[in-house]
Amino acid sequence: MPLKEGDHILLFDGERKYFLELKPRIFSTTTDSLDLAFLIGKDYGDKVIGKKGSSFFILKPTIYDFIKNVERQTQIIYPKDIGYILLKLGVGPGKIVLECGTGSGALTLAFAYVVGDEGKVISYEKEERFFQLANRNLKRFCLDHRVELKLKEVVDSFEEEDVDAVFLDVREPWLLLKPAWDALKPGHPLGILVPTTNQVSHTLTQLLSLPFKDVEVLEVLVRRYKPNPERLRPEDRMVAHTGFLIFAKKVLTP
Amino acid sequence: MPLKEGDHILLFDGERKYFLELKPRIFSTTTDSLDLAFLIGKDYGDKVIGKKGSSFFILKPTIYDFIKNVERQTQIIYPKDIGYILLKLGVGPGKIVLECGTGSGALTLAFAYVVGDEGKVISYEKEERFFQLANRNLKRFCLDHRVELKLKEVVDSFEEEDVDAVFLDVREPWLLLKPAWDALKPGHPLGILVPTTNQVSHTLTQLLSLPFKDVEVLEVLVRRYKPNPERLRPEDRMVAHTGFLIFAKKVLTP
Amino acid sequence: MPLKEGDHILLFDGERKYFLELKPRIFSTTTDSLDLAFLIGKDYGDKVIGKKGSSFFILKPTIYDFIKNVERQTQIIYPKDIGYILLKLGVGPGKIVLECGTGSGALTLAFAYVVGDEGKVISYEKEERFFQLANRNLKRFCLDHRVELKLKEVVDSFEEEDVDAVFLDVREPWLLLKPAWDALKPGHPLGILVPTTNQVSHTLTQLLSLPFKDVEVLEVLVRRYKPNPERLRPEDRMVAHTGFLIFAKKVLTP
Amino acid sequence: MPLKEGDHILLFDGERKYFLELKPRIFSTTTDSLDLAFLIGKDYGDKVIGKKGSSFFILKPTIYDFIKNVERQTQIIYPKDIGYILLKLGVGPGKIVLECGTGSGALTLAFAYVVGDEGKVISYEKEERFFQLANRNLKRFCLDHRVELKLKEVVDSFEEEDVDAVFLDVREPWLLLKPAWDALKPGHPLGILVPTTNQVSHTLTQLLSLPFKDVEVLEVLVRRYKPNPERLRPEDRMVAHTGFLIFAKKVLTP
Repeated sequence: MPLKEGDHILLFDGERKYFLELKPRIFSTTTDSLDLAFLIGKDYGDKVIGKKGSSFFILKPTIYDFIKNVERQTQIIYPKDIGYILLKLGVGPGKIVLECGTGSGALTLAFAYVVGDEGKVISYEKEERFFQLANRNLKRFCLDHRVELKLKEVVDSFEEEDVDAVFLDVREPWLLLKPAWDALKPGHPLGILVPTTNQVSHTLTQLLSLPFKDVEVLEVLVRRYKPNPERLRPEDRMVAHTGFLIFAKKVLTP
Repeated sequence: MPLKEGDHILLFDGERKYFLELKPRIFSTTTDSLDLAFLIGKDYGDKVIGKKGSSFFILKPTIYDFIKNVERQTQIIYPKDIGYILLKLGVGPGKIVLECGTGSGALTLAFAYVVGDEGKVISYEKEERFFQLANRNLKRFCLDHRVELKLKEVVDSFEEEDVDAVFLDVREPWLLLKPAWDALKPGHPLGILVPTTNQVSHTLTQLLSLPFKDVEVLEVLVRRYKPNPERLRPEDRMVAHTGFLIFAKKVLTP
Repeated sequence: MPLKEGDHILLFDGERKYFLELKPRIFSTTTDSLDLAFLIGKDYGDKVIGKKGSSFFILKPTIYDFIKNVERQTQIIYPKDIGYILLKLGVGPGKIVLECGTGSGALTLAFAYVVGDEGKVISYEKEERFFQLANRNLKRFCLDHRVELKLKEVVDSFEEEDVDAVFLDVREPWLLLKPAWDALKPGHPLGILVPTTNQVSHTLTQLLSLPFKDVEVLEVLVRRYKPNPERLRPEDRMVAHTGFLIFAKKVLTP
Repeated sequence: MPLKEGDHILLFDGERKYFLELKPRIFSTTTDSLDLAFLIGKDYGDKVIGKKGSSFFILKPTIYDFIKNVERQTQIIYPKDIGYILLKLGVGPGKIVLECGTGSGALTLAFAYVVGDEGKVISYEKEERFFQLANRNLKRFCLDHRVELKLKEVVDSFEEEDVDAVFLDVREPWLLLKPAWDALKPGHPLGILVPTTNQVSHTLTQLLSLPFKDVEVLEVLVRRYKPNPERLRPEDRMVAHTGFLIFAKKVLTP
């Protein structure tokens, strides 16, 4: 199916990948340039030649690339964390997922992708600029129809009940544990992301005082290697920290 | 919705979780026991009391727990790796995913869960005992209708074309790179898992000689913490290695 | 120089190493046994044959092996941490090092080894059983002449001044920061080990309120590989946590 | 003891540390400057005020800082690796250590520091520019009297016998395993650093064919934390790889 204006592509020049939306404009790297209009009608997998002769390959972006390329004004959650969250929370086709702290909408996007058209994501954000930003990101990747974004500060409760999973990405998640409990189906999972050990301790203290069981705390780390078969070695530097993940499941009685 | 015979539950005794299928039988831990018949008609989130007075909580297993509790005769792929694979390969509702090396079927299960009823997983396995085992695991979790298991050794080619993603979990993945290329849609992703650095080098050498681009090698690590708010610290020991993940995307010309 | 009674050896059977003191006795593994009397007069590097025909190699233990094989009643500090501590604190021949919390004496031993005969280690321990234990460990490895062990609970101050480095391995190091400051030469380093993040936070709060500068917090991790050249891979499991190390340097004015 | 011209100091401005040799000159940071002549006669631990009013603290560098601040033209070995190497090789006062691949001399410096005046380090380097560089670094830190630097390519053998430990930091360490074996005391340790997994495999293959036992392969990783007691968290990025360490001990018969 030939590429058309508005499609998203990864353009790979042998060194780096560029995530682009197709429209007639000149795209430049430090060493070459290309009129993107020329790519309309081509297909994923095709090679095109830049003005100075470099090869560019048109690759298909996956949800991984969408997540990494959301327009952002906040620290986004990384794919390494998102993949683990999806499995632990059991997010899949048809599920109803509640999120608080939409931020740039990277995790929202992943949830929306995986719940499919029969599922639904509800996401609360109290700051208008993030609400607008997440809205743009969801529209850009055509996943806004699966998401209900709410511009609202949650104080006492969420407006939903019987959701399959709740995820909290806010500064003081301990304030939202009771609302999260109220919104969840019994026995179902809650997930939380916080960057500091102090927040982990504070969240745990509250969590252990409420009817939640099976509490876990963990980090996910990714270590990359230089893909050189004769000189295989880890990259010199790596992302050492994004956040701590906390998981628990709601029970009805303590 | 009350629990019925055949449902899967996680039974949590305050220390450990037990993944169980509900049927009338006596379940025992080292400290207490429980007649599971007594749980039929209860609901997720409920608490039940063992014969010696311990509390047991009925939790809802998610796909994470299904994966960790497949009946196994092989080393299974861990959720930490699976979550990352799903995102990198863009596995989601409606996708067609091809796997080679079904093994116990842990990854097959995760693929089947996420592609939904509109998607499809095709998985090749050359050993009959693994083929049967994976079949049982998929049936047990009611995901077999989304999977076509093939008892077949792949030599020259897969029987599929135009699939959205390919994943190889075999001893000599370098032998299957050409078949994988043939089966993939242009621009689409290939994923590979191998346990040793020698296999990574060998696979990379072949991969770089074929029209694949955007080659990446990485490991995913999970570090767990003891969930004690006043004495927060990482667990003493961790899983240090499961395997190396290799990713690449098919292009049409080198 | 031939081995004599009382010498320490590592006996390696191809799989495992056994740290032993030479004296006439029968040493048994799960598969073979050996009369150690037979080793007296042999030399490091020699091979001896067990009663059932296995080969045993006599290796020279280094300070690394001494540390790992102290008689212990406490959690000992690991070589991975000790090596880093030695360099950060500048412990070397001729230095005067003050330690509080002798415990089993593993770190004391390492300090004593490195300061040489011109240097000196002073180590405080408040519990008599650990004091006796550390004493035995130092004597056993013939390093007790370089160490002054003190059975004493430190409240307001240490009895030393102008030491080159201080190391604290106690439950509440924040109570000993002022005594440590008093004992140190100006500009010189302090090191601390604590196992939990809460202790790190508590220690940092106090440390930042005193005239200490260049404060660092870190962990040292060791990842081991199976030494198989054709199937090189990390070991399946690893030590994920021993403790957090904190370092700072004394200044005269805030 | 007041500071004099030629002394080494760490100058800490509250954010960063600067490793300096004292001599009359203007030292500038991005925000302030200082005439170093003004520091002569001061002492470690003192505070001095820059021309624009900033506080600078004079700290005592330890061997850790010397290592990190060698003049370098090569990738140096990191303190995290050096600390571990010292313990594994049993380097301490009075020991004779043989090194091949002096490079910038960072490890040589550490060895020289720890062996004391009764010990000795012999280090081979085949390239004159590194030989000269290491020589400068050792002189600069006044440790050259404990080191015999040899500008020589080792082919068949080292010129030494009966050394306590050998360390190889060269591109093809497998070529030097026999010379290392010849130079070592029986039962004593060999250490090797290589950056790639291919080199590890190649070295292991040779090592296992020679009379060496107790072969180990490992990596040392350091993870740093931001020292903020109320917001304690790991730093965002870390050094992910420097090299793989290989250790073994010489035996007399296979």
